[in-house]
Amino acid sequence: MTRITALEALDIRFPTSVHMVGSDAMNHDPDYSAAYITLRTNDPEVVGYSLVFTIGRGNDVQTAAVRALAPLVVGRDANEVLDDLGTFSRSLIDDSHLRWLGPEKGVMHMAIGGIVNAAWDMAARRAGLPLWRFIARMTPEEIVAAIDLRYLTDALTEDEALEILRRAQPHKERRIAELLKHAYPAYTTSPGWLGYSDDLLAELTRRAVAEGFRTIKLKVGLDLEDDLRRLEIARAAVGEDVAIAVDANQRWDVPQAIEWIRALSRFKLAWVEEPTHPDDVLGHAAIRRAVAPVPISTGEHTHNRVMFKQLLQADAVDLLHIDAARVAGVNENLAILLLAAKSGVRVFPHAGGVGLCEMVQHLAMADYAAISGSMEDRAIEFVDHLHQHFTEPVHIRRGRYLTPNAPGFSTQMHAASLREYVYPEGPAWQNDLRAVSPR
Amino acid sequence: MTRITALEALDIRFPTSVHMVGSDAMNHDPDYSAAYITLRTNDPEVVGYSLVFTIGRGNDVQTAAVRALAPLVVGRDANEVLDDLGTFSRSLIDDSHLRWLGPEKGVMHMAIGGIVNAAWDMAARRAGLPLWRFIARMTPEEIVAAIDLRYLTDALTEDEALEILRRAQPHKERRIAELLKHAYPAYTTSPGWLGYSDDLLAELTRRAVAEGFRTIKLKVGLDLEDDLRRLEIARAAVGEDVAIAVDANQRWDVPQAIEWIRALSRFKLAWVEEPTHPDDVLGHAAIRRAVAPVPISTGEHTHNRVMFKQLLQADAVDLLHIDAARVAGVNENLAILLLAAKSGVRVFPHAGGVGLCEMVQHLAMADYAAISGSMEDRAIEFVDHLHQHFTEPVHIRRGRYLTPNAPGFSTQMHAASLREYVYPEGPAWQNDLRAVSPR
Repeated sequence: MTRITALEALDIRFPTSVHMVGSDAMNHDPDYSAAYITLRTNDPEVVGYSLVFTIGRGNDVQTAAVRALAPLVVGRDANEVLDDLGTFSRSLIDDSHLRWLGPEKGVMHMAIGGIVNAAWDMAARRAGLPLWRFIARMTPEEIVAAIDLRYLTDALTEDEALEILRRAQPHKERRIAELLKHAYPAYTTSPGWLGYSDDLLAELTRRAVAEGFRTIKLKVGLDLEDDLRRLEIARAAVGEDVAIAVDANQRWDVPQAIEWIRALSRFKLAWVEEPTHPDDVLGHAAIRRAVAPVPISTGEHTHNRVMFKQLLQADAVDLLHIDAARVAGVNENLAILLLAAKSGVRVFPHAGGVGLCEMVQHLAMADYAAISGSMEDRAIEFVDHLHQHFTEPVHIRRGRYLTPNAPGFSTQMHAASLREYVYPEGPAWQNDLRAVSPR
Repeated sequence: MTRITALEALDIRFPTSVHMVGSDAMNHDPDYSAAYITLRTNDPEVVGYSLVFTIGRGNDVQTAAVRALAPLVVGRDANEVLDDLGTFSRSLIDDSHLRWLGPEKGVMHMAIGGIVNAAWDMAARRAGLPLWRFIARMTPEEIVAAIDLRYLTDALTEDEALEILRRAQPHKERRIAELLKHAYPAYTTSPGWLGYSDDLLAELTRRAVAEGFRTIKLKVGLDLEDDLRRLEIARAAVGEDVAIAVDANQRWDVPQAIEWIRALSRFKLAWVEEPTHPDDVLGHAAIRRAVAPVPISTGEHTHNRVMFKQLLQADAVDLLHIDAARVAGVNENLAILLLAAKSGVRVFPHAGGVGLCEMVQHLAMADYAAISGSMEDRAIEFVDHLHQHFTEPVHIRRGRYLTPNAPGFSTQMHAASLREYVYPEGPAWQNDLRAVSPR
């Protein structure tokens, strides 16, 4: 019998704030970080990896939260866990004591998501498949069994979920072949960080188009004149055929968002992301009504399926962003993808940070193969940071994500990277960089 | 100069699960716990206490989250902090790195709330006033300066907040005198835990009425037949003049809630609390519409002011429960009380657990004195547990909370209790009780 013998969590931090990488209207100086998770069994071949992404201070708390779940995980029969990932996920989410710390939100929910994702990595590795193909191979009944429909049944019943999944069955193999051949569209945020100069913005924007990206995204929200100038620069650099989205990273109150977005609307924006607080479902709906037809979106901070349900019920968004490491893992993201599919709302997965590109590509590709069946009107975010630390980094070619083909969730980091960046004892934090984080 | 020299956090747990105290439809075996906070300065007379309430497992993570905030607090000028508690609170909430772990929700938000509450305790002690009188003495401008109106301005502007507070000014002294003389109404949940037998329910219910309570609350939601039988017993025990509320503790999906509440509605319920997931604003609104005129409520797990705003915007509730230790402290609760006052929605503060009665009485009394100006159609929850561990425990007489008169927030625990119940090393956890928690 294969038994889970250890749940390890490491506090890994990269001193990204030194280069103003990742700066936006709310996050001035992130040190991209991860609570890096390893799920071990008594069989050294059966391992699962994953991570919870954070941006620096507090990564120790996130790591502690993962470790606190070890008593609920270690000692379990690994095959039982992997054969019924729905029950495994629910057993963590429904722990009544831990539920008090959310429920289903924040540090504890992300910790559960990290562990659940490590179990999916292990399951896909055991099957010898990349996660997206592992999910695509599941039957509609197996997928629904993995999903917690609790609190969703007023918007998505089990029968409706099955119907969506069954509708996607007939051409699944064709779509898998298409992914293998043509890859999945990406969009890039690399040019658009607020900390970059106008010249760098123009140069990186042109380069992104030359590399094949059809959509770029700029950070906005600190200063309206800056935003207008930067959008002029970007539009001039890309021409009329490339889509430009903007991301306010929760900067505005509702009335301010409406005013600001109206001022930006002459730029034909692909979408305006996170105009206000991510919890404000009704605020997003009010903004969307007021600025129509400018498309409104949110989701990278939307903390669980109940919130996604309401965003759709309230007609609050034109498109959604899912995040691989904020909700309770693959299971909850499958529920969210089904909610979106039912509503016909397109999903543009959030990525960047540490490992988010690596992870979320699997979810988007599984969605195309087995859930929504739609791809060409969508794209996965891409940011060219920190991929070198992963054993199976993403591959982008001509603005598209090539399919990951190695078994698992692409979540394993190089041992050397872990040694170098473990906080605070890693060599990367032993020189004067240390002064930049934490305060 | 008085400087903050230490932020201490202790993992305190009480083995309440042994007696099935606090059992409800979602929380079968809580071990009432607290991340107990002490904020120290170089002046031994200037100290602040508070706690974050949890129900057992995970209290170590909550405690770690409080400790992780120490670098943002220790070293500050205590008088600067106490003279501008609004800026202090915002400096913690707006830390961009920590914000990623929420934003404004879960473990990290509760940790911030605990620290902010300790600062209010310190401020009230410094002023020689119980917290409710300390707040009541503040001018409308001072209260508004303490509040973060960010993300609220579509529902409550600064001018509107000032207007509500100014309206309450004229008869403030009369209302303070009335509180001192007549105390504040309480309602009790002590009889109604799901783990209690029918006989105990009947006995405790009769006793509650004899003690002067005019409202009691029963836990429901596990089994409809049980709920109907227990409501019969309770109604027979209290007669027609005492109000009975029920609390489902998030047990139901929306369609199930509607069905179940309709089945219970013949009992003339004072309110039905937490019918579904606390994040489901639109779900509460749908339930309320479907079961009208049965009053619907939620709030003890509502994690921030943005969610309270939406509950009111969506007409989702007839009344609200605030919790002293879930949101970001007194400041955020003042914002929530103002939102409720503007909407004319009554607030019935959540209490029980460890220290929640001690804390929330101050907020309710401050609300009566200086915000809503209304009391007799309201009540603070009361549960008779664990008060003996506090140096200034609540005093209930004839179903009402007597005013706390000692300086501070009533948040200090006895040193002997801390020594006895600190987890896992305290003597209370060294005998076989230990087997009950954690799993």
